[in-house]
Amino acid sequence: MKTQVAIIGAGPSGLLLGQLLQRAGIDNVILERQSPDYVLGRIRAGVLEQGTVDLLREAGAHARMDAEGLPHDGFELVLDGHRERIDLKDLTGGKSVMVYGQTEVTRDLMEARQASGALSIYEAGDVQLHEVQGEKPYVTFTKDGEAARLDCDYIAGCDGFHGVSRQTIPADRLKTYERVYPFGWLGLLSDTPPVNHELIYASSERGFSLSSMRSATRSRYYLQVGLEEKVEDWSDARFWDELKRRLPADAAARLVTGPSLEKSIAPLRSFVVEPLQYGKLFLVGDAGHIVPPTGAKGLNLAASDVDALYRILVKVYGEGRVELLQRYSEVALRRIWKAERFSWWMTSMLHKFPDNDAFTQKMLDTELAYFLDSLAGRTCIAENYVGLPFETIE
Amino acid sequence: MKTQVAIIGAGPSGLLLGQLLQRAGIDNVILERQSPDYVLGRIRAGVLEQGTVDLLREAGAHARMDAEGLPHDGFELVLDGHRERIDLKDLTGGKSVMVYGQTEVTRDLMEARQASGALSIYEAGDVQLHEVQGEKPYVTFTKDGEAARLDCDYIAGCDGFHGVSRQTIPADRLKTYERVYPFGWLGLLSDTPPVNHELIYASSERGFSLSSMRSATRSRYYLQVGLEEKVEDWSDARFWDELKRRLPADAAARLVTGPSLEKSIAPLRSFVVEPLQYGKLFLVGDAGHIVPPTGAKGLNLAASDVDALYRILVKVYGEGRVELLQRYSEVALRRIWKAERFSWWMTSMLHKFPDNDAFTQKMLDTELAYFLDSLAGRTCIAENYVGLPFETIE
Repeated sequence: MKTQVAIIGAGPSGLLLGQLLQRAGIDNVILERQSPDYVLGRIRAGVLEQGTVDLLREAGAHARMDAEGLPHDGFELVLDGHRERIDLKDLTGGKSVMVYGQTEVTRDLMEARQASGALSIYEAGDVQLHEVQGEKPYVTFTKDGEAARLDCDYIAGCDGFHGVSRQTIPADRLKTYERVYPFGWLGLLSDTPPVNHELIYASSERGFSLSSMRSATRSRYYLQVGLEEKVEDWSDARFWDELKRRLPADAAARLVTGPSLEKSIAPLRSFVVEPLQYGKLFLVGDAGHIVPPTGAKGLNLAASDVDALYRILVKVYGEGRVELLQRYSEVALRRIWKAERFSWWMTSMLHKFPDNDAFTQKMLDTELAYFLDSLAGRTCIAENYVGLPFETIE
Repeated sequence: MKTQVAIIGAGPSGLLLGQLLQRAGIDNVILERQSPDYVLGRIRAGVLEQGTVDLLREAGAHARMDAEGLPHDGFELVLDGHRERIDLKDLTGGKSVMVYGQTEVTRDLMEARQASGALSIYEAGDVQLHEVQGEKPYVTFTKDGEAARLDCDYIAGCDGFHGVSRQTIPADRLKTYERVYPFGWLGLLSDTPPVNHELIYASSERGFSLSSMRSATRSRYYLQVGLEEKVEDWSDARFWDELKRRLPADAAARLVTGPSLEKSIAPLRSFVVEPLQYGKLFLVGDAGHIVPPTGAKGLNLAASDVDALYRILVKVYGEGRVELLQRYSEVALRRIWKAERFSWWMTSMLHKFPDNDAFTQKMLDTELAYFLDSLAGRTCIAENYVGLPFETIE
């Protein structure tokens, strides 16, 4: 089997890249270890930056997003009970974000890919990348017990933090930057109306909470919890009770509770490897970097990686500009570092850190208070939240 | 001896408070442990915020400052050789700062006090504060070997970090916030023209440097150095050589060197106690809080403390509003914390920290790059640098 671009992973970044390449006439095959249902079962964030929305439109996977997605012109930040709205539209000269679940994005891209007739191989076992630094890279895998081989020009590693792509690169060729936060997020999904029409990021003495939604009838809430916490110790009743204590009184009073559809604890991590290229292999999205979920940058960063790699590949195949391939890592990392900073900053500002000394905690509290109080500070938050511009490829 | 307000310490905050009270008809006596020459021998920062300049004018100690001070409408921030000007005037709607040495401010205030005929007792030994929580506080001290006593209504503790005022307050009545930074500043004063007409705050791989000035012919430079460094190991030649390596090439090329008039190493510390009041004693300036010198907030914070206490005392004596005394600490601390945050932030951004892990250092470098790149970010820096507004006393 032969293709131009082998894409490892059928999460949103692999599917989005595949769809864009397909529409540009660049042949590609997606290999995914799991089944489509497994992929769709992953609950992830759901705030899309304008650039991500535009890219999904370019990929032709936008009809349902445009119909069902919820445009948000602002969000609320709460510091010890005091609410401050970040007016995204006003502060950024008209920009906003779109609330639309990652699961839905994935589903739309899957359907678009199916309609396009491009090949996706799910439940591909033992995926291995070969000759990545040579002229003729290829991928081997098993499907239904049979060994298979995919020859290609380039490999896009879209297979996430635990995928094989990054692990293919010798450790001594990567510089790793990492921060593991001393807490996790306990998330609960429920078919209840959201407590607020906009997201509420709340810092309180008891820790952080995020009140978000997937639709007008489906809510997604998160609580900062200690790393030692176990999801089985959190009954729905305990979750709702704790959430109420972390919300401003008026929001707590109107919170509608209900049975959980899903409940899980996720650790928080910042992680980046440099570079994102190794020969003909390019790391895209979570394969190369992780952000903590505060600020919802994960999927959006994957989209800007995809954007950069896609535009480079179009020029490579269309104009023969192979020298651009060397620039992917640098171009993608410029934006990645800025989003890593914002996610780290939001996480640091809004959570309680068990080991912070009194001075550090006071600085973080004062920093949040200053940024909320200052027009320039609110503008900094807003312009990062809606997403800094995608890098251009000349 | 009897007065209305006993002021402990004849540094700029004690002198400024004394002068303002004097002009408002409130009797005060200043007690200072050292001689006038000793006080004037201290080399300190020299960037005055607009609010400090205005307060010096209100105190009538402004003639020489207005004639000789250098208004600065901007300064430069350098990140790894890349220079970015912070245009204070443009970013803040017309505000600027005044470069005028703290020594000169002190001298002007001393002369104004002398002209006013108000009493200052220098070389007052063994100063002790008594009955601070009672109705009739008083201060004892020795002068020329004789024991003396000063009765008063209130005591202003303007005697700095090591002074007796804060030590008079039982430790368990104060909450202390502190950060000691893992480096110091090696300063050099020389009669050479400044390398630039505006200040240069430079972050480099070799550590931070600040290029500042006292006048068109007198320069003040600083280098970040390890805590283990000794001033005697730094010849003038070594200092100039190291400074050149930390400056952008064009600035290094035009640096004029010369013999040092003064050279010393100062540690960097953030420190705040809460509250700033204990009975009839009020802590003002360094007696209650210290900032690292990055951003030049020390003297300016002392000025805003003075402003708050002065305006309260005027209302206490003029309108009998003694309840305002209880608000001094809260009012002063609001502004103090914001300036502590800015000084901590500037210090964290611009210096190399020996113990930072790779991720943290990358976040700090990215944060500085983002703030320089973003109009909103530069506005945040500018509005803090020119000074956030003084709090009002209603």
